[in-house]
Amino acid sequence: MEIEAATEQKSLLATLAPGKRARLRRLLFEFGPGQGTLLLLPIDQGIEHGPRDFFPNPASKDPSYQFRLAAEAGYSAIACQIGLATKYYPDYAGQVPLLLKVNGKTDIPSSDDALSTCNASVEDAVRLGADAVGYTLYVGSPRQDTDLEQLRAVRQDCDRFGMPLVVWAYPRGSAMDAKGGQSTYYAIDYAARMAMEMGADVVKLNMPKIDPEKDKLAPAPYNEMEVSQEEAIRSVVESAGRSLVVLSGGSKVDDDKLLEQTRFIMQAGGSGVIYGRNVWQREWSEAVEMVDQIKEIMLSNVSRIP
Amino acid sequence: MEIEAATEQKSLLATLAPGKRARLRRLLFEFGPGQGTLLLLPIDQGIEHGPRDFFPNPASKDPSYQFRLAAEAGYSAIACQIGLATKYYPDYAGQVPLLLKVNGKTDIPSSDDALSTCNASVEDAVRLGADAVGYTLYVGSPRQDTDLEQLRAVRQDCDRFGMPLVVWAYPRGSAMDAKGGQSTYYAIDYAARMAMEMGADVVKLNMPKIDPEKDKLAPAPYNEMEVSQEEAIRSVVESAGRSLVVLSGGSKVDDDKLLEQTRFIMQAGGSGVIYGRNVWQREWSEAVEMVDQIKEIMLSNVSRIP
Amino acid sequence: MEIEAATEQKSLLATLAPGKRARLRRLLFEFGPGQGTLLLLPIDQGIEHGPRDFFPNPASKDPSYQFRLAAEAGYSAIACQIGLATKYYPDYAGQVPLLLKVNGKTDIPSSDDALSTCNASVEDAVRLGADAVGYTLYVGSPRQDTDLEQLRAVRQDCDRFGMPLVVWAYPRGSAMDAKGGQSTYYAIDYAARMAMEMGADVVKLNMPKIDPEKDKLAPAPYNEMEVSQEEAIRSVVESAGRSLVVLSGGSKVDDDKLLEQTRFIMQAGGSGVIYGRNVWQREWSEAVEMVDQIKEIMLSNVSRIP
Amino acid sequence: MEIEAATEQKSLLATLAPGKRARLRRLLFEFGPGQGTLLLLPIDQGIEHGPRDFFPNPASKDPSYQFRLAAEAGYSAIACQIGLATKYYPDYAGQVPLLLKVNGKTDIPSSDDALSTCNASVEDAVRLGADAVGYTLYVGSPRQDTDLEQLRAVRQDCDRFGMPLVVWAYPRGSAMDAKGGQSTYYAIDYAARMAMEMGADVVKLNMPKIDPEKDKLAPAPYNEMEVSQEEAIRSVVESAGRSLVVLSGGSKVDDDKLLEQTRFIMQAGGSGVIYGRNVWQREWSEAVEMVDQIKEIMLSNVSRIP
Amino acid sequence: MEIEAATEQKSLLATLAPGKRARLRRLLFEFGPGQGTLLLLPIDQGIEHGPRDFFPNPASKDPSYQFRLAAEAGYSAIACQIGLATKYYPDYAGQVPLLLKVNGKTDIPSSDDALSTCNASVEDAVRLGADAVGYTLYVGSPRQDTDLEQLRAVRQDCDRFGMPLVVWAYPRGSAMDAKGGQSTYYAIDYAARMAMEMGADVVKLNMPKIDPEKDKLAPAPYNEMEVSQEEAIRSVVESAGRSLVVLSGGSKVDDDKLLEQTRFIMQAGGSGVIYGRNVWQREWSEAVEMVDQIKEIMLSNVSRIP
Repeated sequence: MEIEAATEQKSLLATLAPGKRARLRRLLFEFGPGQGTLLLLPIDQGIEHGPRDFFPNPASKDPSYQFRLAAEAGYSAIACQIGLATKYYPDYAGQVPLLLKVNGKTDIPSSDDALSTCNASVEDAVRLGADAVGYTLYVGSPRQDTDLEQLRAVRQDCDRFGMPLVVWAYPRGSAMDAKGGQSTYYAIDYAARMAMEMGADVVKLNMPKIDPEKDKLAPAPYNEMEVSQEEAIRSVVESAGRSLVVLSGGSKVDDDKLLEQTRFIMQAGGSGVIYGRNVWQREWSEAVEMVDQIKEIMLSNVSRIP
Repeated sequence: MEIEAATEQKSLLATLAPGKRARLRRLLFEFGPGQGTLLLLPIDQGIEHGPRDFFPNPASKDPSYQFRLAAEAGYSAIACQIGLATKYYPDYAGQVPLLLKVNGKTDIPSSDDALSTCNASVEDAVRLGADAVGYTLYVGSPRQDTDLEQLRAVRQDCDRFGMPLVVWAYPRGSAMDAKGGQSTYYAIDYAARMAMEMGADVVKLNMPKIDPEKDKLAPAPYNEMEVSQEEAIRSVVESAGRSLVVLSGGSKVDDDKLLEQTRFIMQAGGSGVIYGRNVWQREWSEAVEMVDQIKEIMLSNVSRIP
Repeated sequence: MEIEAATEQKSLLATLAPGKRARLRRLLFEFGPGQGTLLLLPIDQGIEHGPRDFFPNPASKDPSYQFRLAAEAGYSAIACQIGLATKYYPDYAGQVPLLLKVNGKTDIPSSDDALSTCNASVEDAVRLGADAVGYTLYVGSPRQDTDLEQLRAVRQDCDRFGMPLVVWAYPRGSAMDAKGGQSTYYAIDYAARMAMEMGADVVKLNMPKIDPEKDKLAPAPYNEMEVSQEEAIRSVVESAGRSLVVLSGGSKVDDDKLLEQTRFIMQAGGSGVIYGRNVWQREWSEAVEMVDQIKEIMLSNVSRIP
Repeated sequence: MEIEAATEQKSLLATLAPGKRARLRRLLFEFGPGQGTLLLLPIDQGIEHGPRDFFPNPASKDPSYQFRLAAEAGYSAIACQIGLATKYYPDYAGQVPLLLKVNGKTDIPSSDDALSTCNASVEDAVRLGADAVGYTLYVGSPRQDTDLEQLRAVRQDCDRFGMPLVVWAYPRGSAMDAKGGQSTYYAIDYAARMAMEMGADVVKLNMPKIDPEKDKLAPAPYNEMEVSQEEAIRSVVESAGRSLVVLSGGSKVDDDKLLEQTRFIMQAGGSGVIYGRNVWQREWSEAVEMVDQIKEIMLSNVSRIP
Repeated sequence: MEIEAATEQKSLLATLAPGKRARLRRLLFEFGPGQGTLLLLPIDQGIEHGPRDFFPNPASKDPSYQFRLAAEAGYSAIACQIGLATKYYPDYAGQVPLLLKVNGKTDIPSSDDALSTCNASVEDAVRLGADAVGYTLYVGSPRQDTDLEQLRAVRQDCDRFGMPLVVWAYPRGSAMDAKGGQSTYYAIDYAARMAMEMGADVVKLNMPKIDPEKDKLAPAPYNEMEVSQEEAIRSVVESAGRSLVVLSGGSKVDDDKLLEQTRFIMQAGGSGVIYGRNVWQREWSEAVEMVDQIKEIMLSNVSRIP
């Protein structure tokens, strides 16, 4: 048997139920950069970190900033929690798709036993006209039992309502720390596969960081492999299988680096990026310009159309 | 993009469903000081602290005292738990709106892992003719997982019944203590945003207390900021976004200070105050007079009509 | 405002729904001493302590003893758990009202984290023809979260079925111990208020015990108050507000003391007493005679007719 | 009042609902020794201890052995878990009544916090044509809260379906150990009462073992009583009140001792025995003969016909 | 009574409900080697271990590899989790039966308190056209309480939908480690019985490993028995009673050993094997060839046709 190259595989949307396909196509083709790509704007930092992320650009403290940016700069969707979706999305309904994030937590207690509880339901998402639902899975947390059970209910509701499921697949917790922490190639690779196995239609991953000291703590063969960051990205995209992959930006990084990793993920067969702080921590015109650059890189590096 | 000043924004009630709007307008315009303000009387100290708060004014031990005060002195609403709502509110139904507080706890065990369990439902509130529901969220508590899950159910019932949701947003717990405790600007700012993100229509906040020693323990940039209490109040009101904000009085303080902070919150775009002990720990005529002064300050400092 | 004296207040039954009023009146006026008083016979010691309480009077080990006593000596109701209600009450149905106690626990594990789980439902009570439901609330226990949630469900079912709710309000647990323990004025006073706030129609309290050493551990102002036992009783009855109060006897005490505290509770505006071991640990004729004495004291000291 | 002797009391079945009475009479009169007695065969050791109990008689490893024994030697019922009931009982349906044990656990983890979780429902029992349901209650376990809640649901379903409830009342857990352990007169006496209070129709008890050293650890007055094993049995039967009592055999003991304790329990007013290993750890003909002897002792010592 | 030899017993399918029988026969007779045998391909390693198992044969990282292998090499069924079943099975529907594994966990946290949470339901399995459902039970884990409760729900749904239940019976957890660990004859024997008692239609077992040092830690009589691996296999198959048994391969072992144990399990009356890594960690043609050898051994050693 000859395994087909990723770009030769049949459409990743082929096995999706009609509701999922209709909604996901809206993000992939009708909004954002198009051509089957995803450019997502996350505005859940107010829960996950508190308002501290808004200080670099005070205008960003008003959620209208991000909603208007998502709509006017042309994102594929805006990802936020129930409060913003209820009080800010109405003004932008129809102008940019909504990805309702259904769980979240503060970063105040330690994340040794991380668990992110649902504060909204898939039915909330349907009611608000969302086109996708987001869920954070803490892969490897000692509380994975509760996490997986909770995700099951969300996934089943997504199946019931034909709602695409986007899984934020985050390695986390004390046991993961003991194996090198949340950013190793091992950790991200496991997270990618896990999300796909749990039924994610789209997987959001953080960039794997190559760090020989930490990699040594990972199980074989990861502890003795030497891979470049580019190779690691390609590998984790493969681990996600028929789930689409978007790469996260995390805290604000150097512009060149951001664009480079955008290129990596697209070349690796990923579907796009989810960039928040790297964009909206900038003044308006600068933010719009950065979005344009990202889009350009994305579209010129598409290697797999879902 | 030019961000509109808070007072120029469109009505904060614009995105509320009809039931929420009808009920909330009753508190904002028909009862209490009016002009879109909120003056709330809390009588949940019997649960939260026990009867000790009633000793300074023995008459206050009989809940009729607070109910009659709320009705005759002209509060926007009285906030209490199910027992009082069932046994005392009937005599005042129609004379003052009811805000049913649906969770609570004693202060006997440590609050390291604070969680306030629901002892009543939104449906109870509907049955009793309440115009709003109150929920205490312990932001940052190690038990935030259970807390947020519980709040979700309350919030969803509020959506179902068109019931305004007032969130008592209290930073609490051992992890918060390690970051400076429950009263820092950081803590209150996070709590404000959190409540809004979870779907609060109104957020109740405690006054942030500026204390350089404690502020140092907060994450950046809070640990190195120098703000006045007035600025901090303005900031936390902004963090609550399109949720209305009421400021709590806490234990009895100096009258001038109470009136000053009333002015601060109104000037900052807040909607009003929730004063209990500062009012009903006084003898009747003195209490009524204090309410009059508070109302006067409130009405002469309105800076944002929701 | 002039606060009305307790005896001048309007009927405590005025705000009760019809089902609750109909059932509670049966206990207050049709059975037992009458004139709006409550004389309750508890036979839940078999669960709470095991059979050891039956040794002083071997005849009392057969539950028929207590049922017959309740019916023939003329109690307002007999309080027991589901097993006895199912297997013994049928013979006495119509002869004495049933108060079904819906939760309970053994005293074998430590009560540091006391919680009493429901072993029966309000619907069970309805099915068995009970006229009231009993629930033990461990005020201040570290597990108050579960306790209050459980009580909510019971209270809501009582509302649904028009069933009077009697709350055994017991301060308990390690945190309460650190504040002076379960018997201080502070503890009982808090418990009284808590039960009322949670929706109790009747509150069962233990006699507060004045002990200067323990009182010092209570929060202010309790730690520096000097009250007599009689004053403490009056205070806790007031703290229960519009909930009726019955005083518990606890383990067997001196007869004179028992009658004295019966007088205290009636004079303080309480509705009566709940005496078990003090009565049924006696031989039949002696038990009946003691009941007669208790009734006499009760009726000659009524100070508030609900 | 003159308390009637146990044998003079009215029928213990008098207060049972029709479904319970019909089913229980089948065990008491139609199958097994008859004359209102119970001879039960338990085959739940495979769960509770693993296959090690089958080694003394290898034939007993095949559950058909016990089913055939129950049917052919004439037991009142066979008690087993859902797996055996589903896969082996069909061949014997109608030949011997089924008592479906609905909870169980392995003995691999420590029993300090013993809890036996339900692996089947009363509805399963109804569907399989069972005539009774069995539940293990760990009296005094630190997890009694969960245990009692779980039992409540089983008991309520038994009430709903008219299914007799047999409670395996086992003192257990670290707190019980501190009071003398699971086999003292105190422990068994408490367990008997507890099961009756929780609504058991039949209580299964282990033989109380008199051990002065352990008895000293029990609460008064047990710690200073001197009773014979025979007296202890009589006492625990009385503690179970109107619930029928069957005595357990436990691990294999001397034949004479087994027959002696059979006589004790019958003379004490018990309804019979539940003997497993003492019977089926024998070769077929020997097992049948032992059953005959047990039946003979039972029938010649009946002292209370339910 | 003469116990029938295993091969002379009546059909193991005789007591199965029609839905279970219809589906199970498809695996036993219509697909795979046939003649009442089971050859199962598990592809749940991506969850249980992460992608590391795919490195020895990079092609195996794409789940299509295993699906195509199952279909083309002629397995009885492919066992996988919900994600693969949803995104990969559609292409192979009708070509190979689906066994949906409904619970799983990562191996990142310690397995001291192992519990595998459900991430899919039996209804999901029905919807996807599966012919069986798989569940991992961690026999002896300190969390067996939750595990058994969860299994009950799955088992009941299997009964409701006529879905065969395959139990992965894995001894696990700290308490089991103290008794010799997860691979002893004692541990596997207990697991086999436990799965059968809980209602498994098919039990998946790991090969018992004879290790005198570890066996000493097991309870009597296991701690002093001397058995060969072959005898141990025969014994555990007997312990599973009327449940079919398949033996697991675990990590890749020597080919001869694999074929030998295949022979052992068939000769012992088992129904087959579940081999994953031992097959798909090979290049395609080598994998197909190995399957052929396994089938041959299986068919030539059938000793019990269910």
